[in-house]
Amino acid sequence: MQKYDFTIPTLGSSTIKSPISLSKKIGDFMANYVDDDLYIIYNIETKPNAVAETYKKEMLLEIAGPREKIFFQPENTHAAVVTCGGLCPGLNDVIRAIVMSLWYHYGVKKITGIKFGYKGLIPDFKIPTIKLNPEHVENIHQQGGTILGSSRGYGDNTEKIVDTLQNKNINILFTIGGDGTQKGALDIANEVKKRKLNIAVVGIPKTIDNDLSFIQRSFGFETAVGKALDAVTSAHTEAHDAVNGIGLVKVMGRQSGFIAAQAALASNDVNFCLVPEVPFELKGKNGLLAQLESRLKKRHHAVVLTAEGAGQNLLEKSQKTDKSGNPKLADIGLLLKSRITQYFNQKNFSINLKYIDPGYIIRSAPANPNDSVYCARLGTNAVHAAMAGKTQTLIGLLHNRFVHIPINIAVAKKNKINPDGPLWRSVIEITGQPQLMLNQTKNT
Amino acid sequence: MQKYDFTIPTLGSSTIKSPISLSKKIGDFMANYVDDDLYIIYNIETKPNAVAETYKKEMLLEIAGPREKIFFQPENTHAAVVTCGGLCPGLNDVIRAIVMSLWYHYGVKKITGIKFGYKGLIPDFKIPTIKLNPEHVENIHQQGGTILGSSRGYGDNTEKIVDTLQNKNINILFTIGGDGTQKGALDIANEVKKRKLNIAVVGIPKTIDNDLSFIQRSFGFETAVGKALDAVTSAHTEAHDAVNGIGLVKVMGRQSGFIAAQAALASNDVNFCLVPEVPFELKGKNGLLAQLESRLKKRHHAVVLTAEGAGQNLLEKSQKTDKSGNPKLADIGLLLKSRITQYFNQKNFSINLKYIDPGYIIRSAPANPNDSVYCARLGTNAVHAAMAGKTQTLIGLLHNRFVHIPINIAVAKKNKINPDGPLWRSVIEITGQPQLMLNQTKNT
Amino acid sequence: MQKYDFTIPTLGSSTIKSPISLSKKIGDFMANYVDDDLYIIYNIETKPNAVAETYKKEMLLEIAGPREKIFFQPENTHAAVVTCGGLCPGLNDVIRAIVMSLWYHYGVKKITGIKFGYKGLIPDFKIPTIKLNPEHVENIHQQGGTILGSSRGYGDNTEKIVDTLQNKNINILFTIGGDGTQKGALDIANEVKKRKLNIAVVGIPKTIDNDLSFIQRSFGFETAVGKALDAVTSAHTEAHDAVNGIGLVKVMGRQSGFIAAQAALASNDVNFCLVPEVPFELKGKNGLLAQLESRLKKRHHAVVLTAEGAGQNLLEKSQKTDKSGNPKLADIGLLLKSRITQYFNQKNFSINLKYIDPGYIIRSAPANPNDSVYCARLGTNAVHAAMAGKTQTLIGLLHNRFVHIPINIAVAKKNKINPDGPLWRSVIEITGQPQLMLNQTKNT
Amino acid sequence: MQKYDFTIPTLGSSTIKSPISLSKKIGDFMANYVDDDLYIIYNIETKPNAVAETYKKEMLLEIAGPREKIFFQPENTHAAVVTCGGLCPGLNDVIRAIVMSLWYHYGVKKITGIKFGYKGLIPDFKIPTIKLNPEHVENIHQQGGTILGSSRGYGDNTEKIVDTLQNKNINILFTIGGDGTQKGALDIANEVKKRKLNIAVVGIPKTIDNDLSFIQRSFGFETAVGKALDAVTSAHTEAHDAVNGIGLVKVMGRQSGFIAAQAALASNDVNFCLVPEVPFELKGKNGLLAQLESRLKKRHHAVVLTAEGAGQNLLEKSQKTDKSGNPKLADIGLLLKSRITQYFNQKNFSINLKYIDPGYIIRSAPANPNDSVYCARLGTNAVHAAMAGKTQTLIGLLHNRFVHIPINIAVAKKNKINPDGPLWRSVIEITGQPQLMLNQTKNT
Repeated sequence: MQKYDFTIPTLGSSTIKSPISLSKKIGDFMANYVDDDLYIIYNIETKPNAVAETYKKEMLLEIAGPREKIFFQPENTHAAVVTCGGLCPGLNDVIRAIVMSLWYHYGVKKITGIKFGYKGLIPDFKIPTIKLNPEHVENIHQQGGTILGSSRGYGDNTEKIVDTLQNKNINILFTIGGDGTQKGALDIANEVKKRKLNIAVVGIPKTIDNDLSFIQRSFGFETAVGKALDAVTSAHTEAHDAVNGIGLVKVMGRQSGFIAAQAALASNDVNFCLVPEVPFELKGKNGLLAQLESRLKKRHHAVVLTAEGAGQNLLEKSQKTDKSGNPKLADIGLLLKSRITQYFNQKNFSINLKYIDPGYIIRSAPANPNDSVYCARLGTNAVHAAMAGKTQTLIGLLHNRFVHIPINIAVAKKNKINPDGPLWRSVIEITGQPQLMLNQTKNT
Repeated sequence: MQKYDFTIPTLGSSTIKSPISLSKKIGDFMANYVDDDLYIIYNIETKPNAVAETYKKEMLLEIAGPREKIFFQPENTHAAVVTCGGLCPGLNDVIRAIVMSLWYHYGVKKITGIKFGYKGLIPDFKIPTIKLNPEHVENIHQQGGTILGSSRGYGDNTEKIVDTLQNKNINILFTIGGDGTQKGALDIANEVKKRKLNIAVVGIPKTIDNDLSFIQRSFGFETAVGKALDAVTSAHTEAHDAVNGIGLVKVMGRQSGFIAAQAALASNDVNFCLVPEVPFELKGKNGLLAQLESRLKKRHHAVVLTAEGAGQNLLEKSQKTDKSGNPKLADIGLLLKSRITQYFNQKNFSINLKYIDPGYIIRSAPANPNDSVYCARLGTNAVHAAMAGKTQTLIGLLHNRFVHIPINIAVAKKNKINPDGPLWRSVIEITGQPQLMLNQTKNT
Repeated sequence: MQKYDFTIPTLGSSTIKSPISLSKKIGDFMANYVDDDLYIIYNIETKPNAVAETYKKEMLLEIAGPREKIFFQPENTHAAVVTCGGLCPGLNDVIRAIVMSLWYHYGVKKITGIKFGYKGLIPDFKIPTIKLNPEHVENIHQQGGTILGSSRGYGDNTEKIVDTLQNKNINILFTIGGDGTQKGALDIANEVKKRKLNIAVVGIPKTIDNDLSFIQRSFGFETAVGKALDAVTSAHTEAHDAVNGIGLVKVMGRQSGFIAAQAALASNDVNFCLVPEVPFELKGKNGLLAQLESRLKKRHHAVVLTAEGAGQNLLEKSQKTDKSGNPKLADIGLLLKSRITQYFNQKNFSINLKYIDPGYIIRSAPANPNDSVYCARLGTNAVHAAMAGKTQTLIGLLHNRFVHIPINIAVAKKNKINPDGPLWRSVIEITGQPQLMLNQTKNT
Repeated sequence: MQKYDFTIPTLGSSTIKSPISLSKKIGDFMANYVDDDLYIIYNIETKPNAVAETYKKEMLLEIAGPREKIFFQPENTHAAVVTCGGLCPGLNDVIRAIVMSLWYHYGVKKITGIKFGYKGLIPDFKIPTIKLNPEHVENIHQQGGTILGSSRGYGDNTEKIVDTLQNKNINILFTIGGDGTQKGALDIANEVKKRKLNIAVVGIPKTIDNDLSFIQRSFGFETAVGKALDAVTSAHTEAHDAVNGIGLVKVMGRQSGFIAAQAALASNDVNFCLVPEVPFELKGKNGLLAQLESRLKKRHHAVVLTAEGAGQNLLEKSQKTDKSGNPKLADIGLLLKSRITQYFNQKNFSINLKYIDPGYIIRSAPANPNDSVYCARLGTNAVHAAMAGKTQTLIGLLHNRFVHIPINIAVAKKNKINPDGPLWRSVIEITGQPQLMLNQTKNT
């Protein structure tokens, strides 16, 4: 088991009395501050009688929440919020919670919304910022997307971004985004440090693919699964009601197939669930095509659910034969559609294939109630962390506790389905699909 | 921190090769059996450098899942399923998963559905049983309730129930129900043991209140919160659109206010969230009535969300004046409705109170996708446990792992909101309600 | 067949060129003005070869829509909107459409929202008005209720209301409300006429009960049925899953049982649908109680759906014995609950009755897409009517056309289910309930 | 105004007493038989004082419903149901209603489900039929699609189909399908007539495009609009949250743009609604591309909603340059996507276009409550018509009455949006799109 240093960087010592009035007593029925000394263990799996280990502070995850002493003086604090990357259910919930907590809990009244991702911090793009206040955000959680807009990438502009933060006297930057966004946040925080500025950078990890490590589940993931399920149900209905109907659905998941796996479990109607973590072949007697044929002969309909990143082995091959040398990944959904059609055509086996790509419908949905609560608590805890002077930190949920996670650790590796673990086993159990659709057994 | 003995009772050693074909290798992309030696730590909160402790087996929670060796011979196994107590979203999902897993994974073809709770096992009630098979249960997860029906209680009939199990040659009994049901399951298992029978009793904990200990969340809880939220939204709309409108909603939660707390977080519109764990008073300047008046004067509308078990201190008093000596709890919703109305009438302060009691609508809903997945995995893991000869055991989720929990430990205490913990703090933060609506500070 | 004079009153002749640019040609693919000469026949049922009748103008219903010439000069027009009575899905959609149409189609930029019903027009209540513009109303249709708030009644204040209209120089008053509201609108319009003012009063009929005459269906009705159906489904689940379960649901419908009838048709699970239009008895061999017993003996569960105004014959009797002489109707839902319980108790027949009253949940819902479209078109047509100087007029839908209906005719009688017509026959067909639960045949 | 002969063909005179017990009296609170003499007027629009017209029977539409005398003896009747063409919300509701009405109202116990469309009646395909009964269909309305499966076309097999009907002694064939299906039904009925058989052929018109004439709206249409609206909302969110975002949605509507038009009205977010009935150009200053550019420059985001049959003028042109001579229509959605992208690329105007094609998600949805009721009543009335010996007849809704429509009239022309009528005007009003996106005014 690898060890990590989970120490959370801070801007300095917190000496200001928090304006939030909480209790420090146990048993007085009143909500409490979070003790700075409260941690959880990261690795909870063990063998009985394994050698005992005394947990050093840096190996433990710090519990998130309001501290009695904070770093920033609320009346002089200027906070900014930015959302980056693709849409994801719950973005507006997080924005709302940040604004509400800053305003009502801490009395921070200067809150700036950065529009269209990091681009909104780069003067070249001339994108105006907006002022955020409770009235502005009151009902935004009922809508999908982000009121701040979003964009991808920011190029080599870290210095310009920090210039902007300095020019605007911004003390706290909340970065809501995925892997790339948080790497950017780290760059910004490092530049901030180099310039010896007192600017806290706190991230709220957003990844609809659920591929961020050290985080139990990402916000919006459950909502995404619910929406993906709707598409699977449609595909099943179409497949079931046609002679040799095949319903083919592609969902998000570039490197991690969590949405596909979870939607397969929720649906009970998926016969083949394809994810990036488990390779498969199309041809040969163990390949998907022969397995699909066998299923059709038995039941006359089938549902195939694929993550967009599944089958990269297949796509790489096809790219080799592509003369244009286009490095952009081919579309596994369209590839499967074409190969399946071709396969059955050649056999004179009449099929009815219906292909559904619900991507935008999934990611633009408003958060379901459970994600809404999760987002509200992530946003609030991000405010608590930032006001306490934590920086270079994400707010995450692990073992059902809200914790602080250093950005550099969180972005170091992707969260993926473990084919040897319980989730993938459940998928195999519930789909009834072959354990491995390869003609020769592979090892990692 | 109290210590528990989590040792799982078994009927004997498992010597039969499981008919499920799984891998034992890591890294071959194939789903694996669960190693009997795999455990998780129960208590994950710690202080840095706390004295190390070597975990004995009995202090650890056993990971659930399919074992390589099982106890029961599938072709000779007769399994039965019973659902007890009030309705809860997901019951049919659990039944479905149990039947599907027995049938397809293990080849157990003799599956009996016991109708209307434990009553269906007591000959006096003359309730016929039904045969369950995949065709029968294929689509039942789309409907709320339980296809087996349910009932409460079973009186002093443990011996009769075990007689029935013996007469029907039932080898496995799956008990889907709450606290009382699982206590009954324990009685049954003890009687089984006394008679030296080979009958496994495996429970799937059902509690819409989320009040079962050692379990991260109970199935159906998220769905219930979603439905409760709908009622809160209605109450808010009614309150907002009337002059001095008050929306009052009562939700389930006899001893634990989780539904109310979570719905308050999901809604953002609740101004007063009342739960059994935190006492409050009606009268006096800190009391709910004065606080409500103050809110109305400021904002002209308010939403009060109460768990059914909140305010027992108030109801006890009113019972003392009740001559009938009826031990049945008075209805906190109606009490609040009447006291609030009376209070403002006396002040000649015109209000518009709308009272919503969505109880049956909440509990009869079909499971949402996330609960559906959870139920499917609970049911499948219950089958794995039973086939491996585990007994007197619940399937639970803890620290995001499916684990085995001895029934005797699980029923020993209720899961409650900790007023000193992060959930209640989030409620206080998001509702903005007073920390304590008592005129004198209390201690537990 | 009774004859009506459908002539629409106007403030004067329309001489101003409409700022809306539409076509007058047929076949140019461009949307057209409505010809002032376009009407539809009210009574469309006939016997073959019935004597022909030449339709006089006053016997025909005028088609709604934009006229080429209008009465009010947009730049000098001040419009006001008021919502009255109980909540109903779609109120915000209507408000939104009125504001959008005034602003964008006609360029009317002075639009006032009257808060909390007619009270907002009576100075004594000191309720401030609000300014309405497109930004304000852009997303309101996504929320239930009315952003203007509502209240019931306005007492004997017609003159004060017209004073207010005069003082504020209001030229158009849009009244969104039911029977009582539109009678009030008529009073206001008559007072306006007496004072020889140029104020148009145009109503949009709101009645969740669907009890307004000359209107095919009222806005929000379909949404209400959908929500009522949810409650019926819950009741069915509860009833089905208990031993001798009875699900009892009460829905809106004071004098007309349309919601109950339509929800019964949508559900397929209702066994007894009770409406105000068809009397029934509880006792005797044809009475509801005996019929319910017979159903339970056969099927062991039953669903009873009642409109709140059903069974007035039963309630009248109980009122006679009531000494307080309280004219307020007793609650048929609670009466049924108590009588059914009592009946089966006396027979020692154990039942499980679950009573659901989803009233507030139904009426506070946002409009479904079809109601949303309907509201948008009602609101837009109301603006067209008012700008053209029509007054004392409602916008309605009849034979699938948007038409103008004089208020005085519309409020003269209630729309009710005709027990001899196709809707009630469908209810009888689909519930399978007895044609008549009376012990002696009655005639009207 | 064209005149039609609406006379309904019958198999002979109805002489058998209906087993349904209904009343013939008015005012006895009991549901009534439908009088054979009850009709409605087709053309209800008129000019005042237009010359009177005495309606001959054949110019009137016969009211649907149960007759006192029927043609078929229930105990000897064998009914069959077939569903053809693409999926549509409500198919299962119609099947359910037919089975329930035959079984419970008339006592017809021999009901055969024909699988996979007309193919199931052609022996060559060797598709087995299924028996239908109430238990089988009880809950099917909760699922999308059709339990009977469906397929398109049936080739030149009318004689074989009638052979099958004869061989199976089928007396009534219910054909649920669109234009083509009902033309097929007419062929079958004519062959039946030629052979002097007593087989009634009664159709329930299914067209998700709402393009069947003489029918107020087709079943499933409202549900389809609701689902289309979801896609439009996603498109709007995606467009709104990106820099110069364009949301492009394609919905069903080969020759009639009703879904697009109604979804545009429901959404309020559509800026350009394209339908087959109104031609448009891409290029030139009035063309869509320039209009879109102008919108983006003003508001920075736009939503384009197109019916699949819109812009045929554009596609025809592109086909002319296509050498393969493929007569299959090009995809307007993909064409727009490519032309829009190309246009802005050439201008170096950076856009973010997201294309959504929700077709299968729309058509496979289960019916919403209002469609459910509609389907139930259509199915029941189809049974009444068939049992009374009507044939070559559709059940439709016109002027809010259920009526009989001769198939030959219904299939003679398509129902289309009238650009001069109120629906298209509402679209223009609510989208704010240009009246005509042509560079030269056109005439039909």
